[in-house]
Amino acid sequence: MNTVSLHRKLKGKIFIENKILPLAEQDIKLIYTPGVAKISRLIYQNPKEVYSLTSKGNTVAIITDGTRILGMGNVGPKAALPVMEGKSMLYRQFGKISAFPLCLNTTNKTKIIETIKAIEPVFGAINLEDIESPKVLEISEELEKILLIPVFHDDRHGTAVVVLAGLINSLKIVKKKIENVKIVIVGAGSAGYCISKLLVHAGCKNIVVVDSNGPIVKSRKNHLNKYKKEIASFTNPNEKGSLQEVLRNADAIIGVSGKKNLLNAKWIKTMNKNPIVFALTNPDPEINPLVAKKAGVKIIATGSYTFHNKINNAVIFPYLMRTILDLNIKKINLDLLYSTALAVAKTIPRKQLSANNFIPTIYNKKLQKNITRALLKYKN
Amino acid sequence: MNTVSLHRKLKGKIFIENKILPLAEQDIKLIYTPGVAKISRLIYQNPKEVYSLTSKGNTVAIITDGTRILGMGNVGPKAALPVMEGKSMLYRQFGKISAFPLCLNTTNKTKIIETIKAIEPVFGAINLEDIESPKVLEISEELEKILLIPVFHDDRHGTAVVVLAGLINSLKIVKKKIENVKIVIVGAGSAGYCISKLLVHAGCKNIVVVDSNGPIVKSRKNHLNKYKKEIASFTNPNEKGSLQEVLRNADAIIGVSGKKNLLNAKWIKTMNKNPIVFALTNPDPEINPLVAKKAGVKIIATGSYTFHNKINNAVIFPYLMRTILDLNIKKINLDLLYSTALAVAKTIPRKQLSANNFIPTIYNKKLQKNITRALLKYKN
Repeated sequence: MNTVSLHRKLKGKIFIENKILPLAEQDIKLIYTPGVAKISRLIYQNPKEVYSLTSKGNTVAIITDGTRILGMGNVGPKAALPVMEGKSMLYRQFGKISAFPLCLNTTNKTKIIETIKAIEPVFGAINLEDIESPKVLEISEELEKILLIPVFHDDRHGTAVVVLAGLINSLKIVKKKIENVKIVIVGAGSAGYCISKLLVHAGCKNIVVVDSNGPIVKSRKNHLNKYKKEIASFTNPNEKGSLQEVLRNADAIIGVSGKKNLLNAKWIKTMNKNPIVFALTNPDPEINPLVAKKAGVKIIATGSYTFHNKINNAVIFPYLMRTILDLNIKKINLDLLYSTALAVAKTIPRKQLSANNFIPTIYNKKLQKNITRALLKYKN
Repeated sequence: MNTVSLHRKLKGKIFIENKILPLAEQDIKLIYTPGVAKISRLIYQNPKEVYSLTSKGNTVAIITDGTRILGMGNVGPKAALPVMEGKSMLYRQFGKISAFPLCLNTTNKTKIIETIKAIEPVFGAINLEDIESPKVLEISEELEKILLIPVFHDDRHGTAVVVLAGLINSLKIVKKKIENVKIVIVGAGSAGYCISKLLVHAGCKNIVVVDSNGPIVKSRKNHLNKYKKEIASFTNPNEKGSLQEVLRNADAIIGVSGKKNLLNAKWIKTMNKNPIVFALTNPDPEINPLVAKKAGVKIIATGSYTFHNKINNAVIFPYLMRTILDLNIKKINLDLLYSTALAVAKTIPRKQLSANNFIPTIYNKKLQKNITRALLKYKN
């Protein structure tokens, strides 16, 4: 069955199900009026009881305004819904989490924040999704101040974790140390921003971040928002020129540009020995994996389910969210993301590492246990 | 198992389930990236497709601000959640509808409206629930102007329908005609407001509505908001004095006062022959059914699952909403509610009508078919 006929047949990929089905009349007295009044009173007297007596603790809101959907850009909230339903399905299957898609009828920053604040009581966590940058970074910052529940921003947190996990294992394969390599990040949206910060946190000392106006460095004067200024504070100040020039002597490229076929074989050949290329733009990567291989790339990955070696945040978000909810984690910081990346990298034993096996699939049975164990130190 | 231990065990009575489970890697390519991009594009090109390709058309938001929960009043959004989850379960079992509880962190009218407007894209209808009156009536009016989806206000619409259905059958039993009876409605919140309007629509010519300041009549000057002025425009202008005085020679009382034991046997005895009393306040009615029976009441009903003869809107909302969604009904008006009440009354054959059998239970198999058939004329 193709994707269109499947979606037409299903008319929605998720639904809300009862934990008791069918309800007998005796059950209704307990779960609805009059019995439920007792439950309301318990929560009213002690609001923390909402976690023990309702679905709040296992329910996540997937929030988008539809401005940055897949490779399509701003297609609006209705067109965003099938994507968010798909995401909800992954949350359910791999994280055993109820994730409800809320695609908002506004792209206004303040209204998005107000809406999320208003719906907070029934959710255990927020997942921000496919909202344009830098607006989403501002929203995220504000929400972290005003909400009592964690704010997970998958395009940022999830992507950074899976990239670092893949990079840690790739560097083991090519026998290089993160302290010594030059890494070029192409794209400075939510993903590029968080990946660059996480790589610094992981010990990388030579990072270049390139956006459509060239390398983001201290000496650059234009096209810098607050977040790009932060990037400029830790990137290699000596980088300049075009993308082509910047790629010379790089050890790794992380493509999160949103631009299909941005990279070409000629440029790749100027990289250091055993180059690593993560061309992560979806649905079409910055370079076709076959072209990259032919140009001498040692390790190539994409974000797509079409190719082998998938570096896709779907490997992370259901499991990481499960752990966040279970351990009552309230804030997501770089140290937590770093611990998560190490845990994900470790799901592939050192002896089994190869250019075709360095990142776990979403079906890897060790992911949940490894992540939860690694994050126990953040438990509240 | 008691209600507390059941709720502790379940930790939430509902969850979000996948229509395909488990997902194989091939499925993920269809329901998530890259396949889902095609679905987004179809909806972007033709927004109506969202009803054919996503869960929108079968998903309802149950919205409350927690200001008027059961018999408890303003207990806030967290304490409201177990009630809304219970309501969601009834929607699921009896209407096959996904109803998501959104308990809001604000009691501000404008913010509630803004929030509902923001979340509209993913819902097929809104169910307003347990929000204080008259605020909720203002919210409802405004939403009907700005939303493209129907706004069902269960405390108003659902209650009015079940009351009228019960009254139609009760009057058949006592052999009186609605045109000739005097009906006293005690309470002028959302329920009292809509019941009184629907009774007029159904042909009742002698209605008294009493709130805590006495009968709402044209000559009254104080304590009248916009909605009570509307009530005063059609009630019997000659009624005055206390509740006790107003009840004299009444044929029926509809209690939606929120006040336990408000009515007493002495007053009831001054009513006309074969009195009908619907004491609908939950969890404790305006008069205990046994006390009412002893005082000579011919037909007594309450809103509670504790007693026989339940006049509870749970009999209506799952089925009426199913029909609203199936027939693509966009506005709920008095005529539609009247047709629904007739359809509900008809589920009990005339020959089977008795003082102990005049209102269907929620398990009545004919409810859905009868309502849908009666509302076919409103199909869009």
